[in-house]
Amino acid sequence: MNDTRFEDALVGTLRAAPAFAATSRDERARALVAMAARLDAHRDELVDLARVETHYSVEVLTGELQRTTDQLRFFGDVLEDGAYLERATDTDRGPADVHRLLVPLGLVAVFGSSNFPFAYGVAGGDSASALAAGCVVLVKEHPSHPLTCRAVLALLKEGLVECGLDADTINMVGGFDAGAALVTAPAVHAVGFTGSTAGGRALYDLAANRPSPIPFYGELGSLNPVVVTAAAAVERATAIGELLADSVLQRAGQMCTKPGVILVAEGGAGDEIVRTMDARFEVQEAVQLLNPTVRDQFVAGTRSLAADAAVRLVGGSLAPDSAAGAVRPALFEATSGEFEGVASLSEVFGPTSIVLRYRDASDARALLAELEPALVGGVHAATGDDPDAAELVQAILPGVGRVVWNAPTTGLAVGWATHHGGGYPASTSAHSSVGASAIRRWLRPVSYQGVPERFLPADLGAEGTAHRVDGVLSGVAASR
Amino acid sequence: MNDTRFEDALVGTLRAAPAFAATSRDERARALVAMAARLDAHRDELVDLARVETHYSVEVLTGELQRTTDQLRFFGDVLEDGAYLERATDTDRGPADVHRLLVPLGLVAVFGSSNFPFAYGVAGGDSASALAAGCVVLVKEHPSHPLTCRAVLALLKEGLVECGLDADTINMVGGFDAGAALVTAPAVHAVGFTGSTAGGRALYDLAANRPSPIPFYGELGSLNPVVVTAAAAVERATAIGELLADSVLQRAGQMCTKPGVILVAEGGAGDEIVRTMDARFEVQEAVQLLNPTVRDQFVAGTRSLAADAAVRLVGGSLAPDSAAGAVRPALFEATSGEFEGVASLSEVFGPTSIVLRYRDASDARALLAELEPALVGGVHAATGDDPDAAELVQAILPGVGRVVWNAPTTGLAVGWATHHGGGYPASTSAHSSVGASAIRRWLRPVSYQGVPERFLPADLGAEGTAHRVDGVLSGVAASR
Repeated sequence: MNDTRFEDALVGTLRAAPAFAATSRDERARALVAMAARLDAHRDELVDLARVETHYSVEVLTGELQRTTDQLRFFGDVLEDGAYLERATDTDRGPADVHRLLVPLGLVAVFGSSNFPFAYGVAGGDSASALAAGCVVLVKEHPSHPLTCRAVLALLKEGLVECGLDADTINMVGGFDAGAALVTAPAVHAVGFTGSTAGGRALYDLAANRPSPIPFYGELGSLNPVVVTAAAAVERATAIGELLADSVLQRAGQMCTKPGVILVAEGGAGDEIVRTMDARFEVQEAVQLLNPTVRDQFVAGTRSLAADAAVRLVGGSLAPDSAAGAVRPALFEATSGEFEGVASLSEVFGPTSIVLRYRDASDARALLAELEPALVGGVHAATGDDPDAAELVQAILPGVGRVVWNAPTTGLAVGWATHHGGGYPASTSAHSSVGASAIRRWLRPVSYQGVPERFLPADLGAEGTAHRVDGVLSGVAASR
Repeated sequence: MNDTRFEDALVGTLRAAPAFAATSRDERARALVAMAARLDAHRDELVDLARVETHYSVEVLTGELQRTTDQLRFFGDVLEDGAYLERATDTDRGPADVHRLLVPLGLVAVFGSSNFPFAYGVAGGDSASALAAGCVVLVKEHPSHPLTCRAVLALLKEGLVECGLDADTINMVGGFDAGAALVTAPAVHAVGFTGSTAGGRALYDLAANRPSPIPFYGELGSLNPVVVTAAAAVERATAIGELLADSVLQRAGQMCTKPGVILVAEGGAGDEIVRTMDARFEVQEAVQLLNPTVRDQFVAGTRSLAADAAVRLVGGSLAPDSAAGAVRPALFEATSGEFEGVASLSEVFGPTSIVLRYRDASDARALLAELEPALVGGVHAATGDDPDAAELVQAILPGVGRVVWNAPTTGLAVGWATHHGGGYPASTSAHSSVGASAIRRWLRPVSYQGVPERFLPADLGAEGTAHRVDGVLSGVAASR
């Protein structure tokens, strides 16, 4: 790519890398907190920009920005804790001491998503974890919300400068060609990506087929199966139907954790779940999707399902075939044994889902085994004894990175126990893009054998953080 | 691949996966110890088989087998410790508790190396760490030492059966086509590979370009630069020359950690290092390499270096161009500024290395920056103050996974602080193939949100192992 602005951004960011890698954990934690404070201080103008660019409500965007700044501060906590360094020392396995710890990779490329302009955007989890790791970041500007991207970037740079750090620690490049150029640039050490399966796979292939391949941490499409046991349907069909409809329709169905396929037992209680969902879908106003591509894919995906003779449209309606405009939600239903497309179901972004009616737990298990891997799976079971609960929890586990019990799969707390990943196409790697362990993606281990203390990284001497010495993990709280 | 033996091995191993994944850490640790005991008990016959197939000495192979059984027992220690599970629980980030831990991936394919029939073979680090993780293993039989592979496999199966486990927990497939078939089989979840850059890259490409890509943990070729400071050369030229020559010639130069390029300052002290190495090379007897492919590549690689007008053959001699037979070692030398092939140097397996003569520390730093990434780098510095030591340690770090100070790069202790990996082509992943963290390659994280305790994996309740609760890492030894 012969673009001087791209080259300038790449060279400028690269130049900032050594100094940023040499910052202390304290310095980086302070910078993350300063960035969060800048974003919080400009909440109203950021939310207003994003509202225009995404059609999300002020309430939705305000919540998302809060989650985003909480996430920046959370990685400050991860730095303070220091266990992410994985410090280990062996004094008993050879003539010289061996120390191991993780060090930053260098320059990380970040592709944010269309559907979370803040939490998976310029200041999202990939950037926050990469900066925490000590890596400099080059972001691909999202064409769906460029003004939001630029406003966030400017505030992050203000936060860096306020802390005495180089504004070039994070930069951004735009334009369609910039994506491939970023992933193939020899100076880029790793990629974080959140987006569609088609776009993500194309970039993944570029990363894997480089002369020197680099890790591509992609979160692509995800079906997120939810199964309702027969006993749960009998116990609380209406409550489950409402919860599932709201979960599907949240953010106009533009959630990576949206239940894309819902398994409900045949019979009257299951019918009541579908009727309840249907009623929610019917009163849902038409919504403007994030951008023309999302809308086109929603129209194509729902029309393709509707064209299957074994699939019934039970709630909402099909979107008109016009080039633009708001869309109505669409709920589909199919019966196990009649519908042959289970194994080829894949994510349709937007306000739609398909309910698969199963005969018994063993049939539900067989259907789950046919589905592609996913970020998350949900189980709704009876509150008391439920004869099918154990079997269906086991059946949903192999394909998902998170199992949710009697609660919506949508929504994800950012914490130490968070995992947001799954088999392909949900993720291109087992590593999480959300939560404390996301930082590990931007680090590499180094062992120092017999190297004098004066040449060792300062982090090896960190007091009060986890350190495994001759096999014994210590330097942390005692057993509780 | 239409081979019923391959299919039988794949299906048999896959059938053993659920039961093995459900074993306790105790059961797997006992099985690893039992396997180690079987191998130790048959040491003489194993060493004898491998001696014939590899041309290594009884002493070399006895040491390697010991390291291999120690490694099996070490992964027993890793299981007992339990921190590898990365247990975390958040009670304070949402309405329901979230637990996270790592669970086994399933079926792992293992490709052992030609040069370590035991330590990187059927019972080597990849198999040991995969079995420890709770994964079943399908090994590719190495064509260079098939009888050793089969004898080791039979003993591992005996160890499994002795512990009441399924003999199909580990199986083996042979034949050239079996490699590609293994890497592309939908049932295979991950690959461990140790071997050449050409072969490894071909399999890596197959893994990355699958419809559902899988992780390919490959250790390919590595140059392993060693730099001798000017002060070190003045202080102890003879000792360093002897150490380096022995390191290059160990196992006939067939070590993944062999110093492939040695940076020595111009001038008299540096000349003395080269003279000392030369003397060691001259008295070295001709050696039989591992197999015809290794020999052919050694002949081609050394002849290619010798054909460069800027490269001098200073020790040993070029191998005769016959199709078989023992080879003599060959030591090359080139002067910085005259030799233009620094950036394209790559591993030549076998008893050879090239000494690059540099002008000053800044020149040495520039040469190091041109070299491809490597598993390990060595620095030989003066024992007292050395004006160049800090600069050269920093210069070698970016490209290597391990830095060794005043000691040979060859040889690797298996421990908690071990890292054996590096940038491409040394590794295709930042993850280590040796040491405690090697187990992580065969695991994936799962989060359980609100799932009742009776459905959680038993490992979540493990007493006395590391557990991060609401951000506080505990259940381990207090600060020491």
